[in-house]
Amino acid sequence: MSAVDFGAFVAELATQSGRAILPFFRAHHMLEDKSRGGAFDPVTEGDKAGETVMRHLIRRQFPAHGVIGEEFGNENAEAEYCWVLDPIDGTRAFISGIPVWGTLIGLARRGVPVYGMMHQPFTGERYWGDGGEARYDGPGGARILRTRQVRNLADATLMTTSPALFKGEEAQAYARVEEAVRLARYGCDCYAYCMLAAGHVDLVIESGLKPYDIVALIPIIEGAGGIVTSWDGGSAAGGGRILAAANKALHEAALARLAG
Amino acid sequence: MSAVDFGAFVAELATQSGRAILPFFRAHHMLEDKSRGGAFDPVTEGDKAGETVMRHLIRRQFPAHGVIGEEFGNENAEAEYCWVLDPIDGTRAFISGIPVWGTLIGLARRGVPVYGMMHQPFTGERYWGDGGEARYDGPGGARILRTRQVRNLADATLMTTSPALFKGEEAQAYARVEEAVRLARYGCDCYAYCMLAAGHVDLVIESGLKPYDIVALIPIIEGAGGIVTSWDGGSAAGGGRILAAANKALHEAALARLAG
Repeated sequence: MSAVDFGAFVAELATQSGRAILPFFRAHHMLEDKSRGGAFDPVTEGDKAGETVMRHLIRRQFPAHGVIGEEFGNENAEAEYCWVLDPIDGTRAFISGIPVWGTLIGLARRGVPVYGMMHQPFTGERYWGDGGEARYDGPGGARILRTRQVRNLADATLMTTSPALFKGEEAQAYARVEEAVRLARYGCDCYAYCMLAAGHVDLVIESGLKPYDIVALIPIIEGAGGIVTSWDGGSAAGGGRILAAANKALHEAALARLAG
Repeated sequence: MSAVDFGAFVAELATQSGRAILPFFRAHHMLEDKSRGGAFDPVTEGDKAGETVMRHLIRRQFPAHGVIGEEFGNENAEAEYCWVLDPIDGTRAFISGIPVWGTLIGLARRGVPVYGMMHQPFTGERYWGDGGEARYDGPGGARILRTRQVRNLADATLMTTSPALFKGEEAQAYARVEEAVRLARYGCDCYAYCMLAAGHVDLVIESGLKPYDIVALIPIIEGAGGIVTSWDGGSAAGGGRILAAANKALHEAALARLAG
């Protein structure tokens, strides 16, 4: 069974999880409840609703598969095929009303990411890939995703969720890249990697990621022609410190800057 | 003629300018042309296309009105009614593919902002107000906008386009507010003020704004129950250093922190 066979099933996971999550986005009346002392937390409830739906569909369709999820932990994670799920990646964007969060749906085979989708249910955008190809559908119509061919850091746009997330040596390493690029932008979590795959930005640098923050994005980035690794050039699939680049030249230049 | 009579006309300005601008958003093949040495700049072209359409409609419908625009300057700006236009507010978001830019359409009467709309044509969101009321229409349906009743900085979410935009004493003043809040988020330009009007965030602080960056937003913020002034508590209509707050208590607390 090739990874490409999963396409229609992943699309259904996105549709159903989006329906479960979207009622909690911008649910400010619920937030007001919380501020009055209640225990209701829209982002946690949305996370749980989205992951519950996806786990149910996976269990029914592929009972032998494992699942690793942000909300409900590991389930048969040693299986040949394992789904890696983050229902709401970008919780700070979510609670601030800003539609740059996304639902991450990844599939790994023996630990190697083979298929991934980022779904933004508010804008109706989907970005997905299998490592060999990556595609977009949403406002503006369907298209193939290709990274940009910007070769020099001085011409590149860099994104990170927040420079405040880097501490100590990490902060210095990040700053060495930021001071070399044309434009740095903050605040987009998973959305930033999709902008890289789509050819709008050239570099994404983050640290402290969990596997479910990145596994779904790897086949999209690589399918669009980009490169994503750890800061020491190893596999990105374990999370941690992540560097994504639009092409090999930029990846090498950014790796060198991170190393100092 | 009351400002409310302009509602349908402003909606048409948004529809037509959106049609003119949207083809330039994520037009990455055009950006590639630019990187090969051509002079084509999607954001400038989108700005010009959007402002040209709006100026044409205004001239035809209200020939006595003035126009102040980001791209084509002042035209009869001393008229009783003057439109204040920024076709693409948030150019860095625009060129990075991120849909948190917006088209700002403001109307001032004898220098006082009386009506404003922020239109995000990619997501299909519209936020508008007349100082007494503010409304939203877009994904999730139409609703009245109301700011949040968070009273303490320690519970507040703060937004700014980028902390790097503040220099010297301004940077210190901004930092005094940021260190007092629960959550600070970066990167949203006009979209941040609309999130404040909609009750998702509580404070927006910026500097170096032009009148066309803020005039359209003032009737939205005030219509939703918020307060927007300069950093010294004066009118925001002239741009410069801007503080927007969800309510009077937060506005006073933030003003005091900015003053040191």
